[in-house]
Amino acid sequence: MLDWLAGYWSSLGDRPVQPATRPGGAIAALPEHPPQSPEDWDAIFADLDRVIAPNLTHWQHPGFFGYFPANASTPAVLADLLCAGLAVQGMLWSTSPACTELETRMLDWLAELIDLPDSFTTRSETGGGVIQGTASEAALVAMVAARARTPQLQQQSSPSAPLVAYCSSQAHSSITKAAIISGVGRDSLRLIEVDPDLRMFPGALASAIARDRAAGCIPFFICATVGTTAAGAFDPLEPIGAIAQRENLWLHVDAAWAGSACVCPEHRSMLAGVERADSFNFNPHKWLLTNFDCSALWARDTRAIVNVLSITPEYLRNRASESGAVVDYRDWQIPLGRRFRALKLWFVLRRFGAKGLQAHIREHIRLAAMFESWVREDERFDLAIPRSLALVCFRLASDDDAGTRSRPLLERVNATGEVFLTHAALPVFDSAGERVEGLERFVIRLAIGGAITREAHVKRAWEIIKAIALDPSDSH
Amino acid sequence: MLDWLAGYWSSLGDRPVQPATRPGGAIAALPEHPPQSPEDWDAIFADLDRVIAPNLTHWQHPGFFGYFPANASTPAVLADLLCAGLAVQGMLWSTSPACTELETRMLDWLAELIDLPDSFTTRSETGGGVIQGTASEAALVAMVAARARTPQLQQQSSPSAPLVAYCSSQAHSSITKAAIISGVGRDSLRLIEVDPDLRMFPGALASAIARDRAAGCIPFFICATVGTTAAGAFDPLEPIGAIAQRENLWLHVDAAWAGSACVCPEHRSMLAGVERADSFNFNPHKWLLTNFDCSALWARDTRAIVNVLSITPEYLRNRASESGAVVDYRDWQIPLGRRFRALKLWFVLRRFGAKGLQAHIREHIRLAAMFESWVREDERFDLAIPRSLALVCFRLASDDDAGTRSRPLLERVNATGEVFLTHAALPVFDSAGERVEGLERFVIRLAIGGAITREAHVKRAWEIIKAIALDPSDSH
Repeated sequence: MLDWLAGYWSSLGDRPVQPATRPGGAIAALPEHPPQSPEDWDAIFADLDRVIAPNLTHWQHPGFFGYFPANASTPAVLADLLCAGLAVQGMLWSTSPACTELETRMLDWLAELIDLPDSFTTRSETGGGVIQGTASEAALVAMVAARARTPQLQQQSSPSAPLVAYCSSQAHSSITKAAIISGVGRDSLRLIEVDPDLRMFPGALASAIARDRAAGCIPFFICATVGTTAAGAFDPLEPIGAIAQRENLWLHVDAAWAGSACVCPEHRSMLAGVERADSFNFNPHKWLLTNFDCSALWARDTRAIVNVLSITPEYLRNRASESGAVVDYRDWQIPLGRRFRALKLWFVLRRFGAKGLQAHIREHIRLAAMFESWVREDERFDLAIPRSLALVCFRLASDDDAGTRSRPLLERVNATGEVFLTHAALPVFDSAGERVEGLERFVIRLAIGGAITREAHVKRAWEIIKAIALDPSDSH
Repeated sequence: MLDWLAGYWSSLGDRPVQPATRPGGAIAALPEHPPQSPEDWDAIFADLDRVIAPNLTHWQHPGFFGYFPANASTPAVLADLLCAGLAVQGMLWSTSPACTELETRMLDWLAELIDLPDSFTTRSETGGGVIQGTASEAALVAMVAARARTPQLQQQSSPSAPLVAYCSSQAHSSITKAAIISGVGRDSLRLIEVDPDLRMFPGALASAIARDRAAGCIPFFICATVGTTAAGAFDPLEPIGAIAQRENLWLHVDAAWAGSACVCPEHRSMLAGVERADSFNFNPHKWLLTNFDCSALWARDTRAIVNVLSITPEYLRNRASESGAVVDYRDWQIPLGRRFRALKLWFVLRRFGAKGLQAHIREHIRLAAMFESWVREDERFDLAIPRSLALVCFRLASDDDAGTRSRPLLERVNATGEVFLTHAALPVFDSAGERVEGLERFVIRLAIGGAITREAHVKRAWEIIKAIALDPSDSH
């Protein structure tokens, strides 16, 4: 298997990033019924090359620039193997103490690496961190904890007035999903307007809260985004935190992608004001070489989470938990069971060290800055918004908002199979900085973050983009 | 790493199942701060033996009989390695077609292996299956889908009357957790009484629904358990399904542990009536040699899930999804991102085949039946309730309900380090079959399910238990 994987990685550059699979194309290659008797490994391995590899979008391909990265590394892969091989359950401290304690220490390490205030770590009295599967789950846990802490709900079991939550119009879809799942409701999530830099507008947030209070609603939760998905914008945590504090609302900070960059001191200003947040989340599984899934969530008062999620039937009671001297991470998450995911962080942080991780982030940002300068210098292209870290949003100059020319360009670029980029739609502002209602602008996103992406791959991406933009068969 | 793991597995029998770790014992062995520079592999590997292995509860130990098994196998471990090494994202069909299509086919295979009706598979028009992380997440997804489908909620955005859900008093704590997270509320989950065999009492369920309707509440969801956690009881699906149908409530069936046994035709009667369920869930990661996490959820009308969980921001739009010809599994689950977990099922189902899995289940049940007969034959012990599959609940004869003698017996048995069992508390009934309010009885649980557990290990467990029960130092 290790040999097959080594061969896969070394062949990545020669494979098309996206497969040519048509719907049903992979399933057609699989038997309709399960086997009655055991099959040979040879048959299984042959199918990896026949059924699996040709039908993957290769996220680790050096030419993968789509979405956000979900990068991987040898230490993390080996740790995942170790996790699978040990096959222990970390639901309670007592069901494998090392699984819990390594996680606690790794979250403290990670907090130190990104310079998160001590109030989020076990160096404080009530702070601490935990590994969630995804930022979606982290947001849901935060929202549920926030609801339970809402003073108006302490007196009565069910609220007579609707709860209301807030995030910017650029926040990730997982915040809406959390509102749906938690029963807060999609309609009770206010999508606050953003400024022309796509950052939440604190004045609009304060107004919305005042309006909701006047209407008899119960505001309870704000999610600020540090590094939005579409364009990498940073909501300003200082003023948002001040509003959250004044209004006594839970502030959750979603830094899923951008948080990794805070291993570099020069990027930590994006977290200025985070000390006022109640919970903070970022995904080492996006840009910090730690295989998915590994989403780090910290809270300043972890009791707010445990109080709402802890349920102890007799069959889970044990002396260690009842002593109060240990942490049971099942009470910090949606599921009961949990894998030994801290191993991944441990291996990655040790094998790369702070310096190795900084070099990794800085190189991607350097490459993105290079790409950004090429876009700026070429009059056929427009930079849609200034680069954010390793994300560049651009489009063909003088294209319309729908992207009538940029959209086919993106499709033709991806059709080469050498690179893969995705798109987004950004709000449009008039010259006075006022948002033009209902209008969005198509942009092409280039997100650099692959573990084996090098300068040559970014250069090649630009060559392909330029060549196709020049190709007269693209004219309309 | 593979060598280290092979050594670990071969050493399992010589290790104490539970470590002697005291709270903070593992964390004290870890540096307080993360390393600045990369460390050598040698140092990391040395720490596996120094910090990790001595502080684990060894779930794969042949003497592990606690909780329910979370068993593992070489094919599943290799598939997890492959999953980590490929590191693709399966959130959308287009983000790796093979990841989605293999999963669809594997859930059809698995349904066929346990003889789930075709209405839950893609052979029907609206049925289908998906891999969730855990049964907790499956229950939450089902509850959220059920709420969205509730007719009374179609007319208004927020219910004026409280929603009410139902499960038995023996249902898993995850149902309560789902009620909390979804905002339905813990107080709105009715814990229906059970009969002396610990099965949900359908008459009590029907009465509770009638009572709630009369009080102006909105019943919307029933969870039936097939194989309860404490004692492995099977709720009767036929009458519960009839009530669900008559009352137009969503019926979710949680067969987390017991479902695996349905690969054997002789155990499928527990699912009689499942055709009336809306959703069905079991965990191959418990007893079917497929490493955690792999929880299989099927729904008869998957649109009910997709309709509530699908949110499509522009950056996730793609041609394949918009064609309607593909499945995007992100819309069937809480998170957005997802690993390629179908590989585990594929490898396991092929390497063992239906026959291999049947032999695996049958051997554990044979061993449990053997253990049960020993308990029955020994007058110093009482069988607390007849064995369910591979789970035996027993106690010292003539012990009090609190387990004044059985509890220390369990602790001393576990202290040998050779075996590990856990406990539960079962409701107490009088001779007329009426439940004695507020009274529960301590029982010791022996759950057989380890991949390398053999007859000799079960015999040894019984020897240890008998020897300690005889030991006068145990007398009070």
